[in-house]
Amino acid sequence: MTHRFENHDLVTERAPQMIDVTDDVLDVVARSEVQNGMVLVYSPHTTCAVVINELEDGFADDFAELLDELAPVKGRYYRHDDLDVRTQGIEEDTADFPNGHSHVRAGLLSSSSQTVPVVDGRLMLGPWQRIFFCELDRSRRRKVFIQVIGE
Amino acid sequence: MTHRFENHDLVTERAPQMIDVTDDVLDVVARSEVQNGMVLVYSPHTTCAVVINELEDGFADDFAELLDELAPVKGRYYRHDDLDVRTQGIEEDTADFPNGHSHVRAGLLSSSSQTVPVVDGRLMLGPWQRIFFCELDRSRRRKVFIQVIGE
Amino acid sequence: MTHRFENHDLVTERAPQMIDVTDDVLDVVARSEVQNGMVLVYSPHTTCAVVINELEDGFADDFAELLDELAPVKGRYYRHDDLDVRTQGIEEDTADFPNGHSHVRAGLLSSSSQTVPVVDGRLMLGPWQRIFFCELDRSRRRKVFIQVIGE
Repeated sequence: MTHRFENHDLVTERAPQMIDVTDDVLDVVARSEVQNGMVLVYSPHTTCAVVINELEDGFADDFAELLDELAPVKGRYYRHDDLDVRTQGIEEDTADFPNGHSHVRAGLLSSSSQTVPVVDGRLMLGPWQRIFFCELDRSRRRKVFIQVIGE
Repeated sequence: MTHRFENHDLVTERAPQMIDVTDDVLDVVARSEVQNGMVLVYSPHTTCAVVINELEDGFADDFAELLDELAPVKGRYYRHDDLDVRTQGIEEDTADFPNGHSHVRAGLLSSSSQTVPVVDGRLMLGPWQRIFFCELDRSRRRKVFIQVIGE
Repeated sequence: MTHRFENHDLVTERAPQMIDVTDDVLDVVARSEVQNGMVLVYSPHTTCAVVINELEDGFADDFAELLDELAPVKGRYYRHDDLDVRTQGIEEDTADFPNGHSHVRAGLLSSSSQTVPVVDGRLMLGPWQRIFFCELDRSRRRKVFIQVIGE
Protein backbone atom coordinates (compact mmCIF):
# COMPACT_ATOMS: atom_id res chain seq x y z
CA MET A 1 0.00 0.00 0.00
CA THR A 2 1.19 3.50 -0.84
CA HIS A 3 0.34 6.38 1.47
CA ARG A 4 0.89 10.12 1.24
CA PHE A 5 -0.21 12.75 3.74
CA GLU A 6 0.16 16.52 3.43
CA ASN A 7 -1.06 19.45 5.45
CA HIS A 8 -1.80 22.60 3.46
CA ASP A 9 -2.12 25.85 5.40
CA LEU A 10 -4.84 28.33 4.52
CA VAL A 11 -5.81 31.78 5.72
CA THR A 12 -9.51 32.39 5.34
CA GLU A 13 -10.89 35.88 4.87
CA ARG A 14 -14.49 35.78 5.95
CA ALA A 15 -17.41 33.42 6.60
CA PRO A 16 -18.98 31.69 4.93
CA GLN A 17 -16.11 31.40 2.47
CA MET A 18 -15.60 28.55 0.07
CA ILE A 19 -11.96 28.11 -0.89
CA ASP A 20 -11.32 25.90 -3.90
CA VAL A 21 -8.61 23.41 -2.89
CA THR A 22 -9.00 21.13 -5.93
CA ASP A 23 -5.59 22.02 -7.34
CA ASP A 24 -3.97 21.22 -3.98
CA VAL A 25 -5.69 17.82 -4.04
CA LEU A 26 -4.60 17.15 -7.64
CA ASP A 27 -1.00 18.00 -6.69
CA VAL A 28 -0.98 15.60 -3.74
CA VAL A 29 -2.52 12.82 -5.83
CA ALA A 30 0.20 13.35 -8.46
CA ARG A 31 2.99 13.38 -5.85
CA SER A 32 1.60 10.24 -4.18
CA GLU A 33 2.06 8.25 -7.42
CA VAL A 34 -1.01 6.26 -6.37
CA GLN A 35 -2.70 4.77 -9.43
CA ASN A 36 -5.77 3.30 -7.75
CA GLY A 37 -7.10 4.29 -4.36
CA MET A 38 -8.84 7.11 -2.53
CA VAL A 39 -8.04 10.64 -1.48
CA LEU A 40 -9.40 11.95 1.82
CA VAL A 41 -9.69 15.74 2.16
CA TYR A 42 -10.05 16.44 5.87
CA SER A 43 -10.65 19.59 7.96
CA PRO A 44 -9.22 19.34 11.51
CA HIS A 45 -11.48 22.19 12.68
CA THR A 46 -14.87 22.24 14.45
CA THR A 47 -16.22 25.29 12.63
CA CYS A 48 -15.40 24.37 9.03
CA ALA A 49 -16.53 21.83 6.46
CA VAL A 50 -15.29 20.23 3.26
CA VAL A 51 -17.87 20.45 0.49
CA ILE A 52 -17.97 19.33 -3.16
CA ASN A 53 -20.03 21.49 -5.50
CA GLU A 54 -19.75 23.79 -8.51
CA LEU A 55 -17.31 26.73 -8.57
CA GLU A 56 -19.82 29.52 -9.16
CA ASP A 57 -20.27 32.73 -7.18
CA GLY A 58 -24.05 32.63 -7.44
CA PHE A 59 -24.19 29.23 -5.77
CA ALA A 60 -21.70 30.29 -3.07
CA ASP A 61 -23.90 33.29 -2.22
CA ASP A 62 -27.11 31.24 -2.32
CA PHE A 63 -25.57 28.72 0.05
CA ALA A 64 -24.28 31.43 2.41
CA GLU A 65 -27.75 32.94 2.49
CA LEU A 66 -29.41 29.65 3.45
CA LEU A 67 -26.87 28.97 6.20
CA ASP A 68 -27.48 32.46 7.54
CA GLU A 69 -31.22 31.84 7.64
CA LEU A 70 -30.90 28.48 9.37
CA ALA A 71 -28.28 29.55 11.92
CA PRO A 72 -27.98 33.34 11.85
CA VAL A 73 -24.97 35.14 13.35
CA LYS A 74 -27.22 37.70 15.01
CA GLY A 75 -30.75 37.43 16.36
CA ARG A 76 -30.46 33.87 17.63
CA TYR A 77 -29.26 32.78 21.05
CA TYR A 78 -26.43 30.23 21.19
CA ARG A 79 -25.58 28.65 24.56
CA HIS A 80 -22.08 28.05 23.22
CA ASP A 81 -21.52 31.82 23.15
CA ASP A 82 -21.92 32.01 26.92
CA LEU A 83 -19.02 29.61 27.22
CA ASP A 84 -16.99 31.74 24.89
CA VAL A 85 -17.54 34.69 27.20
CA ARG A 86 -16.80 32.65 30.36
CA THR A 87 -13.50 31.32 29.03
CA GLN A 88 -12.47 34.60 27.52
CA GLY A 89 -8.82 34.63 26.62
CA ILE A 90 -8.13 31.45 28.53
CA GLU A 91 -9.28 28.25 26.97
CA GLU A 92 -10.13 29.09 23.41
CA ASP A 93 -8.67 31.55 20.97
CA THR A 94 -12.17 32.32 19.78
CA ALA A 95 -13.11 33.72 23.18
CA ASP A 96 -13.53 37.24 21.93
CA PHE A 97 -15.53 36.07 18.96
CA PRO A 98 -18.61 34.09 19.97
CA ASN A 99 -18.99 31.44 17.28
CA GLY A 100 -21.94 29.34 18.37
CA HIS A 101 -23.55 29.84 14.97
CA SER A 102 -20.54 28.32 13.22
CA HIS A 103 -20.53 25.19 15.40
CA VAL A 104 -24.21 24.66 14.62
CA ARG A 105 -23.63 25.21 10.90
CA ALA A 106 -20.75 22.72 10.96
CA GLY A 107 -23.05 20.26 12.76
CA LEU A 108 -25.76 20.67 10.16
CA LEU A 109 -23.36 20.05 7.27
CA SER A 110 -21.53 17.31 9.24
CA SER A 111 -18.85 17.20 6.57
CA SER A 112 -15.41 17.20 8.18
CA SER A 113 -14.17 15.47 5.06
CA GLN A 114 -14.87 14.33 1.54
CA THR A 115 -13.47 11.20 -0.11
CA VAL A 116 -12.93 10.93 -3.87
CA PRO A 117 -11.82 7.87 -5.87
CA VAL A 118 -8.48 7.83 -7.72
CA VAL A 119 -8.44 5.55 -10.78
CA ASP A 120 -5.49 5.10 -13.16
CA GLY A 121 -3.84 8.07 -11.44
CA ARG A 122 -6.81 10.32 -12.12
CA LEU A 123 -8.95 12.13 -9.51
CA MET A 124 -12.48 11.03 -10.42
CA LEU A 125 -14.32 14.32 -9.89
CA GLY A 126 -17.25 14.93 -12.21
CA PRO A 127 -16.90 17.67 -14.86
CA TRP A 128 -18.54 20.37 -12.69
CA GLN A 129 -17.21 19.23 -9.32
CA ARG A 130 -14.65 21.19 -7.30
CA ILE A 131 -13.56 20.53 -3.71
CA PHE A 132 -14.00 23.41 -1.27
CA PHE A 133 -12.68 24.11 2.19
CA CYS A 134 -15.61 25.91 3.74
CA GLU A 135 -14.92 28.49 6.49
CA LEU A 136 -17.96 28.88 8.76
CA ASP A 137 -16.54 31.07 11.54
CA ARG A 138 -14.47 34.13 10.52
CA SER A 139 -11.03 34.96 9.08
CA ARG A 140 -8.67 32.42 10.66
CA ARG A 141 -5.53 30.41 10.02
CA ARG A 142 -6.63 26.94 8.95
CA LYS A 143 -5.26 23.60 7.85
CA VAL A 144 -6.57 21.13 5.33
CA PHE A 145 -5.24 17.56 5.44
CA ILE A 146 -4.95 15.71 2.14
CA GLN A 147 -4.27 11.99 2.33
CA VAL A 148 -3.98 9.48 -0.50
CA ILE A 149 -3.98 5.72 0.06
CA GLY A 150 -3.81 3.06 -2.63
CA GLU A 151 -1.21 1.45 -4.81
CA MET B 1 -4.19 -4.29 -1.96
CA THR B 2 -7.12 -5.21 -4.16
CA HIS B 3 -9.04 -2.50 -5.98
CA ARG B 4 -12.19 -2.52 -8.10
CA PHE B 5 -13.90 0.47 -9.66
CA GLU B 6 -17.17 0.47 -11.62
CA ASN B 7 -19.36 3.18 -13.04
CA HIS B 8 -23.07 2.39 -13.10
CA ASP B 9 -25.29 4.54 -15.31
CA LEU B 10 -28.66 5.71 -14.07
CA VAL B 11 -31.53 7.66 -15.55
CA THR B 12 -33.43 9.56 -12.91
CA GLU B 13 -37.09 10.41 -13.35
CA ARG B 14 -37.78 13.34 -11.10
CA ALA B 15 -36.47 15.26 -8.08
CA PRO B 16 -36.11 14.61 -5.30
CA GLN B 17 -35.83 10.92 -6.19
CA MET B 18 -34.06 8.33 -4.09
CA ILE B 19 -32.83 5.39 -6.17
CA ASP B 20 -31.83 2.33 -4.19
CA VAL B 21 -28.39 1.27 -5.47
CA THR B 22 -27.68 -1.24 -2.70
CA ASP B 23 -27.84 -4.24 -5.05
CA ASP B 24 -25.35 -2.55 -7.40
CA VAL B 25 -23.01 -2.05 -4.45
CA LEU B 26 -23.41 -5.65 -3.30
CA ASP B 27 -22.58 -6.85 -6.83
CA VAL B 28 -19.40 -4.77 -7.04
CA VAL B 29 -18.28 -5.93 -3.59
CA ALA B 30 -18.80 -9.56 -4.68
CA ARG B 31 -16.94 -9.04 -7.98
CA SER B 32 -14.06 -7.30 -6.18
CA GLU B 33 -13.38 -10.44 -4.11
CA VAL B 34 -12.30 -8.07 -1.32
CA GLN B 35 -12.71 -9.76 2.06
CA ASN B 36 -11.81 -6.81 4.30
CA GLY B 37 -11.86 -3.19 3.27
CA MET B 38 -14.21 -0.35 2.38
CA VAL B 39 -16.62 0.49 -0.41
CA LEU B 40 -16.97 4.10 -1.52
CA VAL B 41 -20.23 5.01 -3.29
CA TYR B 42 -19.59 8.30 -5.06
CA SER B 43 -21.73 10.74 -7.08
CA PRO B 44 -19.72 12.75 -9.65
CA HIS B 45 -22.51 15.35 -9.87
CA THR B 46 -23.02 18.73 -8.17
CA THR B 47 -26.79 18.42 -7.81
CA CYS B 48 -27.05 14.93 -6.32
CA ALA B 49 -26.18 13.19 -3.07
CA VAL B 50 -25.57 9.69 -1.77
CA VAL B 51 -27.65 8.95 1.32
CA ILE B 52 -28.06 5.93 3.59
CA ASN B 53 -31.48 5.50 5.17
CA GLU B 54 -34.51 3.19 5.23
CA LEU B 55 -36.27 2.11 2.02
CA GLU B 56 -39.74 3.43 2.82
CA ASP B 57 -41.94 5.68 0.71
CA GLY B 58 -43.21 7.65 3.70
CA PHE B 59 -39.68 8.65 4.68
CA ALA B 60 -38.77 9.53 1.09
CA ASP B 61 -41.79 11.84 0.88
CA ASP B 62 -41.12 13.37 4.32
CA PHE B 63 -37.54 14.08 3.30
CA ALA B 64 -38.58 15.58 -0.04
CA GLU B 65 -41.03 17.84 1.78
CA LEU B 66 -38.37 19.15 4.17
CA LEU B 67 -35.92 19.83 1.33
CA ASP B 68 -38.65 21.69 -0.50
CA GLU B 69 -39.31 23.85 2.55
CA LEU B 70 -35.63 24.65 3.12
CA ALA B 71 -34.75 25.34 -0.52
CA PRO B 72 -37.97 25.58 -2.54
CA VAL B 73 -37.98 25.28 -6.33
CA LYS B 74 -40.32 28.24 -6.65
CA GLY B 75 -40.77 31.32 -4.50
CA ARG B 76 -37.12 31.75 -3.57
CA TYR B 77 -34.50 33.68 -5.51
CA TYR B 78 -31.28 31.84 -6.46
CA ARG B 79 -28.38 33.87 -7.88
CA HIS B 80 -27.21 30.70 -9.60
CA ASP B 81 -30.31 30.79 -11.81
CA ASP B 82 -29.20 34.09 -13.32
CA LEU B 83 -26.05 32.35 -14.46
CA ASP B 84 -28.10 29.57 -15.97
CA VAL B 85 -30.01 32.11 -18.02
CA ARG B 86 -26.83 33.98 -19.06
CA THR B 87 -25.10 30.84 -20.28
CA GLN B 88 -28.17 29.44 -21.95
CA GLY B 89 -27.35 26.64 -24.33
CA ILE B 90 -23.66 27.35 -24.20
CA GLU B 91 -21.83 26.36 -21.10
CA GLU B 92 -24.13 24.07 -19.23
CA ASP B 93 -26.72 21.57 -20.36
CA THR B 94 -28.97 22.75 -17.55
CA ALA B 95 -29.26 26.19 -19.08
CA ASP B 96 -32.93 25.87 -19.85
CA PHE B 97 -33.61 24.49 -16.40
CA PRO B 98 -32.51 26.84 -13.61
CA ASN B 99 -31.33 24.55 -10.84
CA GLY B 100 -30.06 26.87 -8.10
CA HIS B 101 -32.29 25.11 -5.57
CA SER B 102 -30.64 21.77 -6.31
CA HIS B 103 -27.10 23.14 -5.79
CA VAL B 104 -28.15 24.55 -2.43
CA ARG B 105 -29.82 21.28 -1.42
CA ALA B 106 -26.67 19.37 -2.41
CA GLY B 107 -24.64 21.84 -0.35
CA LEU B 108 -26.86 21.35 2.69
CA LEU B 109 -26.59 17.54 2.52
CA SER B 110 -22.88 17.74 1.56
CA SER B 111 -22.88 14.03 0.82
CA SER B 112 -21.16 13.35 -2.47
CA SER B 113 -20.40 9.89 -1.14
CA GLN B 114 -20.95 7.31 1.54
CA THR B 115 -18.38 4.79 2.75
CA VAL B 116 -19.36 1.40 4.20
CA PRO B 117 -17.08 -1.24 5.77
CA VAL B 118 -16.64 -4.65 4.13
CA VAL B 119 -15.78 -7.44 6.59
CA ASP B 120 -15.31 -11.12 5.68
CA GLY B 121 -16.68 -10.30 2.24
CA ARG B 122 -19.85 -8.85 3.68
CA LEU B 123 -21.19 -5.29 3.24
CA MET B 124 -21.73 -4.13 6.82
CA LEU B 125 -25.00 -2.25 6.36
CA GLY B 126 -27.36 -2.35 9.32
CA PRO B 127 -30.61 -4.35 8.94
CA TRP B 128 -32.68 -1.31 7.90
CA GLN B 129 -30.01 0.51 5.90
CA ARG B 130 -30.10 0.91 2.13
CA ILE B 131 -27.84 3.09 -0.02
CA PHE B 132 -29.59 5.69 -2.19
CA PHE B 133 -28.46 7.80 -5.10
CA CYS B 134 -30.44 10.98 -4.49
CA GLU B 135 -31.42 13.12 -7.49
CA LEU B 136 -31.93 16.74 -6.45
CA ASP B 137 -32.31 18.44 -9.86
CA ARG B 138 -34.66 16.80 -12.41
CA SER B 139 -34.77 13.78 -14.72
CA ARG B 140 -31.22 13.39 -15.99
CA ARG B 141 -28.66 10.80 -17.08
CA ARG B 142 -26.41 10.15 -14.10
CA LYS B 143 -23.45 8.06 -13.01
CA VAL B 144 -22.68 6.45 -9.69
CA PHE B 145 -19.12 5.34 -9.00
CA ILE B 146 -18.64 2.26 -6.83
CA GLN B 147 -15.12 1.57 -5.62
CA VAL B 148 -13.88 -1.22 -3.33
CA ILE B 149 -10.43 -1.24 -1.78
CA GLY B 150 -9.06 -3.83 0.62
CA GLU B 151 -7.60 -7.29 0.45
CA MET C 1 -2.56 -4.00 4.11
CA THR C 2 -3.55 -4.21 7.75
CA HIS C 3 -7.21 -4.24 8.72
CA ARG C 4 -9.03 -4.13 12.05
CA PHE C 5 -12.76 -4.04 12.61
CA GLU C 6 -14.56 -3.74 15.94
CA ASN C 7 -18.16 -3.28 16.95
CA HIS C 8 -18.74 -1.29 20.12
CA ASP C 9 -22.17 -1.53 21.75
CA LEU C 10 -23.84 1.57 23.15
CA VAL C 11 -27.04 2.27 25.04
CA THR C 12 -28.33 5.74 24.31
CA GLU C 13 -30.45 7.57 26.85
CA ARG C 14 -32.39 10.18 24.92
CA ALA C 15 -32.49 12.10 21.65
CA PRO C 16 -30.78 14.04 20.43
CA GLN C 17 -27.81 12.70 22.38
CA MET C 18 -24.20 13.06 21.34
CA ILE C 19 -22.02 10.30 22.79
CA ASP C 20 -18.29 10.94 22.63
CA VAL C 21 -16.71 7.79 21.14
CA THR C 22 -13.27 9.31 20.55
CA ASP C 23 -11.59 7.13 23.19
CA ASP C 24 -13.10 4.02 21.59
CA VAL C 25 -11.67 5.10 18.25
CA LEU C 26 -8.24 5.82 19.76
CA ASP C 27 -8.23 2.33 21.34
CA VAL C 28 -9.06 0.59 18.06
CA VAL C 29 -6.41 2.59 16.20
CA ALA C 30 -3.84 1.55 18.84
CA ARG C 31 -4.88 -2.13 18.70
CA SER C 32 -4.79 -2.10 14.88
CA GLU C 33 -1.08 -1.21 14.93
CA VAL C 34 -1.73 0.71 11.71
CA GLN C 35 0.84 3.46 11.28
CA ASN C 36 -0.58 5.14 8.16
CA GLY C 37 -4.12 4.78 6.92
CA MET C 38 -7.69 5.77 7.73
CA VAL C 39 -10.24 5.02 10.41
CA LEU C 40 -13.91 4.76 9.44
CA VAL C 41 -16.44 5.33 12.25
CA TYR C 42 -19.74 3.95 10.98
CA SER C 43 -23.30 3.86 12.35
CA PRO C 44 -25.33 0.87 11.05
CA HIS C 45 -28.60 2.63 11.99
CA THR C 46 -31.08 4.70 9.97
CA THR C 47 -31.92 7.15 12.75
CA CYS C 48 -28.43 8.05 13.95
CA ALA C 49 -25.42 9.95 12.66
CA VAL C 50 -21.71 10.22 13.30
CA VAL C 51 -20.61 13.81 13.79
CA ILE C 52 -17.28 15.51 14.51
CA ASN C 53 -17.46 18.70 16.56
CA GLU C 54 -16.43 20.20 19.90
CA LEU C 55 -17.27 18.49 23.21
CA GLU C 56 -19.27 21.29 24.80
CA ASP C 57 -22.75 21.14 26.31
CA GLY C 58 -23.76 24.52 24.94
CA PHE C 59 -23.08 23.41 21.40
CA ALA C 60 -24.89 20.10 21.93
CA ASP C 61 -27.98 21.96 23.15
CA ASP C 62 -27.79 24.55 20.35
CA PHE C 63 -27.59 21.74 17.80
CA ALA C 64 -30.48 19.84 19.39
CA GLU C 65 -32.58 23.01 19.29
CA LEU C 66 -31.96 23.57 15.59
CA LEU C 67 -32.78 19.94 14.72
CA ASP C 68 -35.99 20.27 16.70
CA GLU C 69 -36.94 23.39 14.77
CA LEU C 70 -36.20 21.84 11.37
CA ALA C 71 -37.86 18.48 12.04
CA PRO C 72 -39.87 18.73 15.25
CA VAL C 73 -41.03 15.63 17.14
CA LYS C 74 -44.50 17.10 17.62
CA GLY C 75 -46.52 19.49 15.46
CA ARG C 76 -45.33 18.16 12.12
CA TYR C 77 -46.86 15.34 10.12
CA TYR C 78 -44.56 12.50 9.04
CA ARG C 79 -45.88 9.94 6.55
CA HIS C 80 -43.39 7.46 7.98
CA ASP C 81 -45.32 7.47 11.25
CA ASP C 82 -48.39 6.05 9.53
CA LEU C 83 -46.27 3.07 8.52
CA ASP C 84 -45.08 2.68 12.07
CA VAL C 85 -48.68 2.46 13.22
CA ARG C 86 -49.65 0.02 10.43
CA THR C 87 -46.81 -2.39 11.21
CA GLN C 88 -47.23 -2.13 14.93
CA GLY C 89 -45.41 -4.88 16.76
CA ILE C 90 -44.74 -6.82 13.59
CA GLU C 91 -42.11 -5.50 11.26
CA GLU C 92 -40.23 -2.92 13.23
CA ASP C 93 -39.31 -2.65 16.86
CA THR C 94 -40.04 1.05 16.68
CA ALA C 95 -43.70 0.39 15.94
CA ASP C 96 -44.90 1.85 19.20
CA PHE C 97 -42.64 4.86 18.82
CA PRO C 98 -43.28 6.79 15.62
CA ASN C 99 -39.88 8.06 14.58
CA GLY C 100 -40.45 9.85 11.27
CA HIS C 101 -38.72 12.95 12.63
CA SER C 102 -35.55 10.98 13.33
CA HIS C 103 -35.37 9.54 9.81
CA VAL C 104 -35.70 13.04 8.36
CA ARG C 105 -33.04 14.40 10.72
CA ALA C 106 -30.71 11.55 9.75
CA GLY C 107 -31.41 12.37 6.09
CA LEU C 108 -30.59 16.03 6.61
CA LEU C 109 -27.27 15.25 8.32
CA SER C 110 -26.55 12.38 5.88
CA SER C 111 -23.61 11.31 8.01
CA SER C 112 -23.69 7.57 8.54
CA SER C 113 -19.95 7.77 9.04
CA GLN C 114 -16.88 9.94 9.47
CA THR C 115 -13.39 9.12 8.21
CA VAL C 116 -10.24 10.42 9.91
CA PRO C 117 -6.61 10.05 8.77
CA VAL C 118 -4.11 8.03 10.82
CA VAL C 119 -0.49 9.19 10.38
CA ASP C 120 2.51 7.72 12.21
CA GLY C 121 0.08 5.84 14.43
CA ARG C 122 -1.70 9.02 15.46
CA LEU C 123 -5.39 9.86 14.94
CA MET C 124 -5.25 13.20 13.14
CA LEU C 125 -8.14 14.97 14.90
CA GLY C 126 -7.75 18.69 15.36
CA PRO C 127 -7.22 20.01 18.92
CA TRP C 128 -10.95 20.74 19.48
CA GLN C 129 -12.38 17.81 17.53
CA ARG C 130 -14.16 14.87 19.12
CA ILE C 131 -16.09 12.11 17.36
CA PHE C 132 -19.72 11.69 18.41
CA PHE C 133 -22.27 8.96 17.89
CA CYS C 134 -25.45 10.98 17.54
CA GLU C 135 -28.74 9.39 18.64
CA LEU C 136 -31.67 10.98 16.78
CA ASP C 137 -34.55 8.66 17.81
CA ARG C 138 -34.84 7.75 21.53
CA SER C 139 -33.10 5.57 24.12
CA ARG C 140 -32.05 2.44 22.23
CA ARG C 141 -29.38 -0.23 22.06
CA ARG C 142 -26.94 0.80 19.32
CA LYS C 143 -23.75 -0.28 17.62
CA VAL C 144 -20.88 1.76 16.31
CA PHE C 145 -18.46 0.12 13.87
CA ILE C 146 -14.84 1.22 14.00
CA GLN C 147 -12.62 0.07 11.15
CA VAL C 148 -8.96 0.87 10.52
CA ILE C 149 -7.21 0.13 7.23
CA GLY C 150 -3.61 0.95 6.36
CA GLU C 151 -0.20 -0.47 7.02
